[in-house]
Formats: sequence, C-alpha cells, structure tokens
Amino acid sequence: MEGVDYLADERKKAQFDVDAMKIVWAGSRHAFEVSDRISKLVAGDPAFRKDDRTMLPRKELFKNTLRKAAYAWKRIIELRLSEEEASKLRFYVDEPAFTDLHWGMFVPAIKGQGTDEQQQKWLPLAYKMQIIGCYAQTELGHGSNVQGLETTATFDPKTDEFIIHSPTLTSSKWWPGGLGKVSTHAVVYARLITDGKDQGVHGFIVQLRNLEDHTPLPGITLGDIGTKFGNGAYNTMDNGVLRFDHVRIPRDHMLMRVSQVTREGKYMQSDVPRQLVYGTMVYVRQTIVADASCALSRAVCIATRYSAVRRQFGSQNGGPETQVIDYKTQQSRLFPLLASAYAFRFVGEWLNWLYTDVTQRLQASDFSTLPEVHACTAGLKSLTTSVTADGIEECRKLCGGHGYLCSSGLPELFAVYVPACTYEGDNIVLLLQVARFLMKTVSQLGNGKKPVGTIAYMGRVEHLMQCRSDAQNAVDWLKPSVVLEAFEARAARMSVACARNLSKFTNPEEGFAELSADLVEAAVAHCQLIVVSKFIEKLQQDIPGKGVKKQLEVLCGIYYLFLLHKYQGDFIATSCISPKQASLANDQLRALYSQVRPNAIALVDAFNYTDHYLGSILGRHDGNVYPKLYDAAWKDPLNESDIPDGYHEYIRPLLKQQLRAARL
Amino acid sequence: MEGVDYLADERKKAQFDVDAMKIVWAGSRHAFEVSDRISKLVAGDPAFRKDDRTMLPRKELFKNTLRKAAYAWKRIIELRLSEEEASKLRFYVDEPAFTDLHWGMFVPAIKGQGTDEQQQKWLPLAYKMQIIGCYAQTELGHGSNVQGLETTATFDPKTDEFIIHSPTLTSSKWWPGGLGKVSTHAVVYARLITDGKDQGVHGFIVQLRNLEDHTPLPGITLGDIGTKFGNGAYNTMDNGVLRFDHVRIPRDHMLMRVSQVTREGKYMQSDVPRQLVYGTMVYVRQTIVADASCALSRAVCIATRYSAVRRQFGSQNGGPETQVIDYKTQQSRLFPLLASAYAFRFVGEWLNWLYTDVTQRLQASDFSTLPEVHACTAGLKSLTTSVTADGIEECRKLCGGHGYLCSSGLPELFAVYVPACTYEGDNIVLLLQVARFLMKTVSQLGNGKKPVGTIAYMGRVEHLMQCRSDAQNAVDWLKPSVVLEAFEARAARMSVACARNLSKFTNPEEGFAELSADLVEAAVAHCQLIVVSKFIEKLQQDIPGKGVKKQLEVLCGIYYLFLLHKYQGDFIATSCISPKQASLANDQLRALYSQVRPNAIALVDAFNYTDHYLGSILGRHDGNVYPKLYDAAWKDPLNESDIPDGYHEYIRPLLKQQLRAARL
Repeated sequence: MEGVDYLADERKKAQFDVDAMKIVWAGSRHAFEVSDRISKLVAGDPAFRKDDRTMLPRKELFKNTLRKAAYAWKRIIELRLSEEEASKLRFYVDEPAFTDLHWGMFVPAIKGQGTDEQQQKWLPLAYKMQIIGCYAQTELGHGSNVQGLETTATFDPKTDEFIIHSPTLTSSKWWPGGLGKVSTHAVVYARLITDGKDQGVHGFIVQLRNLEDHTPLPGITLGDIGTKFGNGAYNTMDNGVLRFDHVRIPRDHMLMRVSQVTREGKYMQSDVPRQLVYGTMVYVRQTIVADASCALSRAVCIATRYSAVRRQFGSQNGGPETQVIDYKTQQSRLFPLLASAYAFRFVGEWLNWLYTDVTQRLQASDFSTLPEVHACTAGLKSLTTSVTADGIEECRKLCGGHGYLCSSGLPELFAVYVPACTYEGDNIVLLLQVARFLMKTVSQLGNGKKPVGTIAYMGRVEHLMQCRSDAQNAVDWLKPSVVLEAFEARAARMSVACARNLSKFTNPEEGFAELSADLVEAAVAHCQLIVVSKFIEKLQQDIPGKGVKKQLEVLCGIYYLFLLHKYQGDFIATSCISPKQASLANDQLRALYSQVRPNAIALVDAFNYTDHYLGSILGRHDGNVYPKLYDAAWKDPLNESDIPDGYHEYIRPLLKQQLRAARL
Repeated sequence: MEGVDYLADERKKAQFDVDAMKIVWAGSRHAFEVSDRISKLVAGDPAFRKDDRTMLPRKELFKNTLRKAAYAWKRIIELRLSEEEASKLRFYVDEPAFTDLHWGMFVPAIKGQGTDEQQQKWLPLAYKMQIIGCYAQTELGHGSNVQGLETTATFDPKTDEFIIHSPTLTSSKWWPGGLGKVSTHAVVYARLITDGKDQGVHGFIVQLRNLEDHTPLPGITLGDIGTKFGNGAYNTMDNGVLRFDHVRIPRDHMLMRVSQVTREGKYMQSDVPRQLVYGTMVYVRQTIVADASCALSRAVCIATRYSAVRRQFGSQNGGPETQVIDYKTQQSRLFPLLASAYAFRFVGEWLNWLYTDVTQRLQASDFSTLPEVHACTAGLKSLTTSVTADGIEECRKLCGGHGYLCSSGLPELFAVYVPACTYEGDNIVLLLQVARFLMKTVSQLGNGKKPVGTIAYMGRVEHLMQCRSDAQNAVDWLKPSVVLEAFEARAARMSVACARNLSKFTNPEEGFAELSADLVEAAVAHCQLIVVSKFIEKLQQDIPGKGVKKQLEVLCGIYYLFLLHKYQGDFIATSCISPKQASLANDQLRALYSQVRPNAIALVDAFNYTDHYLGSILGRHDGNVYPKLYDAAWKDPLNESDIPDGYHEYIRPLLKQQLRAARL
C-alpha cells in the first residue's frame, strides 16, 4: 500500500537522535541544509528522472544526459544558485557528464597552471560555458606513467606557434571524459620540444571543435572510445579518442604559470614553485575519498533496508520467517561496511582540513609537510576506493538474487564506481608510493629527523617494536589506547621488516621490485591506521545529540575490530597481539554487531538520501519492495508485447520442426 | 599488422610442451579434440558473431539470441552432432539462452522426478524441442528456503485435477530463465494440498503457452523481470515472472516418481528412495565447478596476455618500458588466479568422478557417502564461484583502464558470471551447511565412527591438534606432506575450536547462529584443503609431455602458498605454523612467481580458447591490441556521426547562452 512505512517498526528501535546524526554525517548544519534542499529539488523534478536509465540504448542515453546537463545549467541560472548549491545539484542529478570534467578538471587546470593573463582570458568563457573543456592527458598506450606520454608540442619560432602532433597510434589521447562528442576545448598534455630538445610534459589549451557548427577542426580526429562496463553507468559520458595531425596553436596557449617558452623559443622556469600543483592533487584526492563514503553509504543503505525487509528461513509455527538482517552471517558482512562508510566520511572530513592546511603552507612557501601529505592522500585514495568497490559488490550479494536486477540500483552503482580504483593513480601504484615514503621514513629514523603528521608514530618505533598488547578481556578492545597501540605496532613492524629485507639487496631498486607485494601490505597497514586514528580522534570531539556519540563509538569499534580480525595474520605474526587476544577481539566484535542491529535502519536513514538519489527499489525508504519490484518489471522493453520479436522467425519454426526451411 | 604474432617472443620462452598441456587441461585427448573442433566451427561461422553484443538494446539483443539458438539447433541437426558435441556447441556459442534451462533443468527434472510413463510421454517432445521447458522454482519472496514457497497445487478429486494458484504477490514465480518469453512448459514447484493438508513442495508439469500462437494460456500471467547487471551478459535470457490464477492441470502432470497422489486424492510415497535427487544435485554442482574454472581461466587468459603486451614505466635510455607482467605486484595478483584456474579444473575433474561414484552407490542403495558428498559439493560450489567472481574483477583491474571497456570482454564476463554465487544455493548458506556437517563430524569423533572421503583427515584429529610444522626453510614448503599437514591441521583446529565454543551454549541452534561467521571460516578452511589435496593427488598421477608436470607443480605450489599467505592468520593463530615458517612460505611463493613468469603465456594458451570464445581485444592471441582497440571504438553507435544527437537542442544553446528560450 502506498503511504505505509513498512520499516516503521525498525525506525522505532533506534536508540539515538537520527536528526542530530544527519548533521554529523553532513559535516555541519549548513551542509545538511544545502544537501537536503537541493536533493529534494532534484528528486521532485521529473526532468531528472533516472529510473529508465539502465534500459536506454547508448545514443538515447547520451542524448538524455545532454538534456539533463543543459536543463541543470538552466535551473542553476534561473534559481541563481551559489557555486556550492550548483555543485550539489550536479551531484544529486547523479549522472556522469561532460560537465564533471569541465568544472572538475578543465577549470582547475587553468586556474592552477595558467598565468594571470591566461586565467583572465579563459576563465570567464569557461564560467559561462561559452566554451566547454576537458582534460586530455591519458593516451592509448600511456596511463600511470605520465612521463611516458608521446604526444608532441613542437615550438616553431618562425610562426610563434606550437605544432601539436600524435606521432604514433599509441599516442592517441584515449579516455578523457567529455572529449568524444562535446568539448570545444581541451587542456592537452604533450612533450614540449624546443629547438629539438625534449623539455618533458606540459599542458596546452587546444580548441578542438568549431564553435559554430561543432565540427572537429582541421587536423583533429575525434570520437567516443566505445561502450563501457554496465547499464547506464559511465556510458552517459563521452570518454574520447583524439588524434592530432600537425595542429598549430599560438604560443600563448601553453599554460605558462610554472614554465614558459619565450618568443625566441627559449624554455625557462618562472619563480612560481612547482610544488603548487600538489595543492590541486590533495584537493582531487580529498574529493575521491568523500565520493567513496557516498558510494559505499548508498550501497549499504540499500542492503541494510532490504535486509530488514527480506525474510528467509526460521518460520516458527507458520509465522513469518526471520529478517535476514538478524543473521550473524549477514551482520558480519554488512555492519563492517556500514562502519566503513562512516569511517571514510570522517577521514574525508579530516582530509578537507588537511587541504586547507597544506594550501596555507604552500602560500607561505612551507613545503615541509608535502611528502607526508602526498603519501597520506595517495594511500587514503587507494584504501577507500578499493574497499568501496568491493563493498558495493558485497552489498549486491547481500541482497540475494534481486541485487542482480538493475532495478536494485546496485549493478549500476558498482559499474559507475569501479573506475575510481584506476583513475587519478592506480591503487597499487599509489600504495607503492606510500611504501617508498615509509621506507624513507624508516631509513631516516636514526638521523634525528622527527616524523610528523600521520607518520608521527614512527618516532616511537623503539617502543612499538617491543610492546605487547595488554588486552586481558574482550571489553579491553574498546579502549582507544589499546587499539591504537596495536595498529601502530603492526604498521611499524611491517615497515621495519620490509626495510630489513630491503637492506639485504645490494641494488635497492631491485629489492624494492622483488619485495613490492610485501611493501604494498605494509602500506595498507599504515593507511588503515590513519583511518582508525582519525575515527578515534573524531570521537574525542564534542558530538551533540542523544545517543549519537554512543552509536559512533559502536561503529568505530566495529571498524577497527573487523580489520583486526580480517588482518589477524599481520597482528599475530608480528607478535603485536596473541591468538588469545585476537579471539577476545572477535568476541567483542560479535557483541558490537548486536548493539548496532536495532539502530541499523536509523543509521542509514542518517545519510538522508532521497529515493531518487538512491535509485533502488530494494532500498526504498518505505520498505515497500515487492509490489514495486513487480511493477517495475513490466516497464522493460521486452514486455511491450506478449509475443517477443523473433517468435515468428525463430521460435515457431523451432517448435514446428520447420527450421530446415527457415532463413536464419 | 595482420598476421604478425606480437607474443611470439613470449611463446618461445615456454619450458614445456603446450600441446600436451592442452590435453591435460581438456581432461583427455578425446575431450580436447571435440572442444577444439567445435570451438573452431563456432568461431568460423559469422552467424555466431558476438562482438556487437554489448552495444545492442535489450529487444534486439534478445531477438538475436533467439536467432542464434534456432540456428545452433539447425546446425546440430544438419551436422548430426552427438549429444556431447551439441552441448559443446551451445557452450562455445557463449550466450545464456532458454536452451540452457530446457536441456539443463527441464529435461533432467523430468528424467529424475518423472515416472517411466511420464518420461515416455514428455521426453520425446522435449528432445525434439516440440515443447520448450523451464524450471519454475524461485518466487519473488522465496529463494534459498525452498520449503517456504507459497504457490499451491490443490488436488480436486471431483475433476481429478490440480489447481495451481499464486495466492500472494510474493508467491509469483520470479527468476526462472526461459520463462519470460519463450518456454511453452515449465516444471513448477508448488505446495501440494490434498484434502486440506499441506504435503510440502512438489514438482508439476504445467503448459504455459498456446503451442499455435504462443499466447499465455488462460489464468497465466507471464513476463520478463527486467534488465539485469551488465551489457549483453544475462540480458540475452528471459528470466521471467509467472502468476497462476486457479489454473487446472491433469493429475498425471504431477512428477510422481517419488511420491504420488491417487485418483482418490490419497498422498503416498513410492518405493523409490528420495535420496535419488541428490544425484542430480551433485551433477549440477559439478557443472558449476567446471564452469568456474572456465570463467576464471578466460579472465586470466585475457589479463595474462595483455600484461605481456602492456608496458608502463622503467624505460632505460629511451628504450621500451617494462612489460607489466614483470612487476611482482602484478604477478602476485595474477599468478595465484592462474593457479586457481588450474586447481578448479582438477577439482572439477575429480567431482566428475565423484558423481559417477555416487550414482553407482545410489543405484546400489548405498547412501553412506551422501552427507560427505553433499557437504563437499556444496562447499566446492561456494568456494570456486566466490573466488572466480572476485578473480574476474581482479583480472579486469589488472588490465588498467582498458579493462573497463566492453571491448576488453571482462565487464561482460564478470556480469554474466556473478549470479553463480547466488543461484543453486547462496554461497554463505552453502558454507553453513558444510559447517553443520563439520560440527556433526567432530561431535561423532568419540563414537568410533570413522570419517571418510574428504573428511577422512578428521580421523587423525588427535595428531592434527598437536602437530607442529617441521618446515625449516623455504623449499620445505614444496613438500606435499608438509603442506597437507598444515592445511589439515588448520582445518581440524578451526572446526574443533568452533565445536568447543558451540558447546558453551545451552541451545545449540542459538550457538550456531551466534557463531555462524566463525563457522563459515572453518568451512572455508575445509574446502580449501579439499582443493589443495586434489591438486596434489593429480600430480601423483602419470602426466605425459615434456615439462608439463613440472609446470603443474609450480602452479600447485603457488595455489597453496598463496592461500597460506592470505590466510596466515588462521595458520598462525592456531599454531599450525610459526610466523617464521609463514615468512619462509612467502619467500618460496615469490620464487615460484619467477618460475612461472616465462611460461605464463603458454600456460594460458593451453586453455586453447579461440579469439571468438574469449571475446576480448586485450586477450587477442596475436597480442595486436592497440590497433584493434582503436578500430573497435569507431563501431560504437555514438560514432555514427561527428555531431551527436542532441547537439542542436542542448549543446549549441548552452554554448550560445540561449538556454532560457530552449525547450528542455
């Protein structure tokens, strides 16, 4: 029945103030109010409907996205939305589009790498969307290794121009979003050649299409790179291919904030420090971590609500079966993901602070924290996106067979999310960067250099190498000091063990390559420690609202105890904890599952997601799953007729034994 | 260039006879020859083309599948293929279709549960496909718990008929493949009601559609349940919804081999033992394990070949970059999956033997091995499908960004495979069944009952509870006895620990529920032991071919040492091995990666997959990846025109600041 809340009983069980938790999740009352208002605006506007998305063929899907993007921009102007509100609106429209790259990469690249004159020229055009830009870096044969890009930008002093060229097939730009069909301009990364000398990779603003009729400019080949994973998903984006055949651009289209080419063709550095680009990188990675908590929380919200709706087994005397959320096997897979969603939210919040901090330092030419900040953001990007990608698929499995239907929302959420593990730094490559930083830190410990920030615990390495956990019983595992020491000791010991093994190699690079799988594990241990410690720090703050802090403490406990159980091999092998202590931790973890159970629905309600944004029948706020699932089926194109297309040609001749004569 | 083998250098490195390995992989020379011939037949026939599949809208996709199914049947008749060959042909067409259910579930259900008269009536019709059948068990609200099905079959003694009815929305049949648009008949599972008494769930043959015009019969509602995960993938299948409104069928349409309803409405058992149904179950699960090795090996083949083609970083003096397959991080993710594909192949082969064995025993009314066989097949289904689903996605990530393109073949392979974790028994539910069997075995150890088959090691529990591994150095981990003892001790100790913890509960069922997450872990340990021991047993056989056995020994070592590393927490916490021994095992594992490296391409060549079957540009046999990837992009519907549909309505008004007037 419409209007009935089938999850009302679950909501009554909550032992905390859900509205107060909504503020905590949003980060502030202001952030909550903006999100709440804009998400409802989008949800209430039929123009943003998306429940047909997974059924549309590519061309219709793409055209529909163009319509939504234009309509969204129109509404942004009509409603005079602030930059914050406009960004939230695009977020809740929830559909990858060329605008993501325009606002998220093209504009920031010009801001970060353009001179003042260049910014004055290009930004007003971009802000009004009189030009649409993208970010053309990755090539068909070159992804992770930016220094390996092949596209060339050769300076021609005769005409004061650069000649942009794709010398090989593998130098074709490949993947940039917005490039294939929409962008009029791109920031193109190419090897700068001056006077025959390769000056390395630099950025250039290149016009791609005629602004009057949208045709590609002479010498430019443009197209879409083809269908990608999943229904709907990233197929709303025109990830593109781009080839240059000796395309000429004016010299002042090179982004010259950090290095320049003079009229005479001389290559020189400006006095702007190169390190400034790190600010952008921290910003982008902080966004990715925030997105991870969003994506994971959506999946968890769907799986948690449906686990309360769905019943299997356990019927007593013909009564209803047991809600699957009451099974410990379900809880032990679902609740750690719920806890991870909160953990990633808070570490994302902290990264936001870190970005502000590092920006201020960079402006004051203080580069001292950069290596630590770089390692920390690289590691957190890797950790949170990997867990989220796996977590979405786990949530899908937790919904049983129905999770496989597009109407569950989970297949598309997975397909649209997984590229996060690869873009902006492949997750394994990033962990190796973290490992390099860890090895360097260990090697410098004797030099009196004091590690700071997230690596500060290494300053206590002597203690951490020999401490033994004093957890005596299960509840000791609720003490932050016990937990932090165990995680710090594990991370420190794994790093030190790697460093010792590395020292046995005469060629350090060879050793690093040979031991890289172990180094990755040490990096993961370090990153998990960061998330655990930031969650614990969050709980040391004042958190208003009845029962809110208590719930977060339970979630924090689930987060670290789940990790401790999953990685008990690390903890026990390094003698940080004993098998007995691991077993006690596991007992405590089970107890926490029981504590979170009555609050589970309220804890996902606190995300404040509209049914539109969730896009899942299984995750409906009112729990009215089965009738809606049944209704949705009939909307599939295949149900337009009882007799399927092809019956007369293929099924009837088969049944009637007349295939021999049939044209197939 | 066409005709060039870009992987020729890799193939030259192989240290074994690839043709001999192909026979080992296929299982026999005969099996190889049939597979080889039929796969090439399919690959060479343009009617079976599938490279456009991920771009087709649902209706076209489905119609195309009907065409292929009809054409395949036509070819089967024309070429007079044997049953084995016909089945291989359907396999290599590689597209889920209604025929899978017709041949794989409908026919076997009638064979297994029908009386001789029923078989004589229905099977000839089914064999000629004069009727097309499916298997209608799962309901909208009922999956894992078959006993909870709601559909009723009420006997009406007045007319000698059953009245089939869907009393609630949740009783709608939901998911059966082939049901939505194609099947003319179904085996429907419903609660048998005789004289007001519920006799439990039984199977009934029900005609669904008119054989002349394919319209649903009166009282029957039929439809497709909607789009599922992925492009192409399972959307070629009409998973269906079915509702009955008091549909009458003759009494003799109940499948009556095991139990009957007489003309008078009396319910009675025949003298055919119920246990016979277990034979079918073992058969189905053995098929699923074999499918797992196929799916995993396909993904591994793609990722391995592309890892040899792809280069990133490590360029020396402008030379080529390093092949990514040379990175230890790549090897440590890829090679264990390669080893798993082989391991699952061999355990599947053994299950095939087990099926023959259990069939013979059942015919001789020997039911003694059934509990062990049930636990073993349930566990192996769960283990292999979970690892395969995760492994395919890992292979996709190992291909970097390009793995996200449908033309890589991996997104569709993942999407089409993952339901295997849910159908034929949810993987966690199955592991709990294994755990129940383990607990029962442990509890009976004192009773003098000797455990047999895969659980025989429990007979040595006293030794296994106190043994200590005597591995002294890395190469000791190549000794089968050392490895088996460690895996047996771990499995035994985890089971015994669970049993001890269970005994602390006064209500055993409550204890089982509370400890279920731990019980699942014990079940996994048991199942891994089975796979390891069957791989080791395989190597004790005579295996011809130069270097073949040596390669399999390396893969076997990688399989168990990878598990030992990943689950070192289990091994160390139960004191089966020491941290030092775990570290030695890890050293040996790294050494084995180096040994498999030169043979990697040849080891995936041994699967003998055609490029058609692989369906992946990244996995092309000739390694000619980038030009083909580039060519494929242009076939996307979005590239039919330079100017995308929607430009005039949405992009141009945006760029020209004319949105206010635009109709959006």
